[in-house]
Amino acid sequence: MKGECAVELRKFSIPEIIFGQGSLRYAGRCARRLGAEKVFVVSDPGLEYVGWVDRLTETLAEEKLRWVYFNDIVSNPRDFQVERGAAIYKEEEADVVIALGGGSPMDAAKGIALVASNGGSIHDYEGANRIQRPLPPMVFIPSTAGSGSDLTQFCIITDVRRKVKMSIISRSLVPNISIIDPLLLQTKTKNLIIASGIDALAHAIESYVSKIATPFTELQSLQAIRLIFEHLEAALETRSLDCLQQLSTASTAAAMAFSNAGLGADHALAHSLGGMFDTLHGLVHPVLLPPVMRFNLRECVEKMANIGEVILNKKIRPREAMALAGIEKLSEYCESLQVNNHLREIVDDPCRLPELCKMALNDACLLTNPRAASAEDLLRICEEAW
Amino acid sequence: MKGECAVELRKFSIPEIIFGQGSLRYAGRCARRLGAEKVFVVSDPGLEYVGWVDRLTETLAEEKLRWVYFNDIVSNPRDFQVERGAAIYKEEEADVVIALGGGSPMDAAKGIALVASNGGSIHDYEGANRIQRPLPPMVFIPSTAGSGSDLTQFCIITDVRRKVKMSIISRSLVPNISIIDPLLLQTKTKNLIIASGIDALAHAIESYVSKIATPFTELQSLQAIRLIFEHLEAALETRSLDCLQQLSTASTAAAMAFSNAGLGADHALAHSLGGMFDTLHGLVHPVLLPPVMRFNLRECVEKMANIGEVILNKKIRPREAMALAGIEKLSEYCESLQVNNHLREIVDDPCRLPELCKMALNDACLLTNPRAASAEDLLRICEEAW
Repeated sequence: MKGECAVELRKFSIPEIIFGQGSLRYAGRCARRLGAEKVFVVSDPGLEYVGWVDRLTETLAEEKLRWVYFNDIVSNPRDFQVERGAAIYKEEEADVVIALGGGSPMDAAKGIALVASNGGSIHDYEGANRIQRPLPPMVFIPSTAGSGSDLTQFCIITDVRRKVKMSIISRSLVPNISIIDPLLLQTKTKNLIIASGIDALAHAIESYVSKIATPFTELQSLQAIRLIFEHLEAALETRSLDCLQQLSTASTAAAMAFSNAGLGADHALAHSLGGMFDTLHGLVHPVLLPPVMRFNLRECVEKMANIGEVILNKKIRPREAMALAGIEKLSEYCESLQVNNHLREIVDDPCRLPELCKMALNDACLLTNPRAASAEDLLRICEEAW
Repeated sequence: MKGECAVELRKFSIPEIIFGQGSLRYAGRCARRLGAEKVFVVSDPGLEYVGWVDRLTETLAEEKLRWVYFNDIVSNPRDFQVERGAAIYKEEEADVVIALGGGSPMDAAKGIALVASNGGSIHDYEGANRIQRPLPPMVFIPSTAGSGSDLTQFCIITDVRRKVKMSIISRSLVPNISIIDPLLLQTKTKNLIIASGIDALAHAIESYVSKIATPFTELQSLQAIRLIFEHLEAALETRSLDCLQQLSTASTAAAMAFSNAGLGADHALAHSLGGMFDTLHGLVHPVLLPPVMRFNLRECVEKMANIGEVILNKKIRPREAMALAGIEKLSEYCESLQVNNHLREIVDDPCRLPELCKMALNDACLLTNPRAASAEDLLRICEEAW
């Protein structure tokens, strides 16, 4: 860590954060402060149904703002949905984007803001640092404690023709303001809380061992791991607001970390799986994360041992045994959540694995994986996960 | 902490950070990205002498930017210096502010940006949240590892008539970009490294026990305390770049924390001391911090024990003993640095203490002190420090 830090440049960029129960009520004021006249609001039918979209637009009305509402998106949002949204944004002459939702509405909103301001097609921006012009101001309000899109430089959009989830990464994609209101988590299903919590856990673990982790991101990663292990089970059992709030804190910490340190092979494969099989993103990590950690272990024994220490809350010597015990405990933990634990439950045919791995090789997330991974390496990880 | 968090709103706002040896070279590019045509550069003769100002303006020339240079400031910058700078900023039609220096040039630059954009006199903005209009974009480059002004919502300017250091606190005072280049610390004197390190330590300790600390700030506070105890002595002895970089990391972490969590009675008194006696800010903390911690102890035993655990790197039971052992160790540590350890070495006459305490009562930093403090309480703290 020290050696790495001594010679390279590290960047850390996050939005202004407003965190707390009831903070949704500040949405209109935030949009006004960013110069809004007409807001482009992105959300989804689920959030309309439980009333949060109305609560949001009330805050816009209070500030005498006009708005246009867009909800024509699905889980794993599609390229054509983004382009349709961008066309409406321009037609309506909106000037600020507000997203209310989980990763899908938030990523769709980023894609819309991007295409509306930079032109071209969303496909032009796949990869890292390919955005030239500034985006309109963005206020994001996450309704899950997982994706972290409200904090991060990441935007993941599915290319339907190629069946690929494109990773678009740029500092320009960091929203201006993230309003994190743990009250919104109360209307989520058990499965969505698990999927979000495990996604945040994967963000924390991958960013912690990333090749470009810094002291600023490492601290947040470990904090997120600790909070998720301490509070996820209780949140599922009790639905107590206090536990849900701890998960929001964890997800926020993990997002601060991975936005600035990047991710790794687990997310590269997860994006390919999502593109090919339209899987719920959070539910692929229990399958992939333990074998990816075993693959990475030799490049980061000390860090994996730190993760193990946080997971198990005790010290084991030697450090490699500590690291392995952590991975083992993580596997057991994922099994206890009663979600998919084998890749065969997601992929229809093992013959499709080479295609999957080839696609993952092109994902920008792989660049920061601590151990270089070839297509063969990824295939072995998938076979272990099968 | 949990209870507090469950009912209140917490905000977290920091600039974009570019951290690393040699990062000064990005100054011109950052100004350009923020729309600069003519940059208002604030620095001081010391940094001119060692060549850093030239290095900075070279990066502006590379980007074909024009600039106007201002260095007419002293340690504990004065109100009239800020107003003179603001007049020049407007006369020259500058559009972006770059500050290169320790807390004094950076705070002066904030004051100049504030008065130039919001009008009136710098005195109009004393206190919290009194800025209405946006400031010009700001790129700050700290040359010490202490003040944290490059990260924070704080700006401290001396009112020469009243002999008061005014605390001006607003989210609008957070610079857009902080460029933290540890190479700049190599040209600093031993005394300045101590003063900066102890200032960062005071930021970390006061923000950790602040009434409005959050999980995001607490993590950074403890990290800063740990890094300073691990690396300050070695940095003074060896001047190794690695140690200096650790101090930069510590100061940055402490600034992230105190900008968002606020400070306490130590800083309220330190500002009054600075206003009345023009003391070097960092050197008042060894005198004040231990008695302030003893005063606060009963309101935050658990947190003080956590601080003690980090300082001593061991656990002592009961927790109150752990807390006291930490304060004791901090006192010894300050003595070992061979700086002022008694208030009588700073204040010329004990008769002036009531005036000092009365002034500190009006400082915005006192609002977040964990224990309410009256003028009599502050006087007892000063008598203990005498």
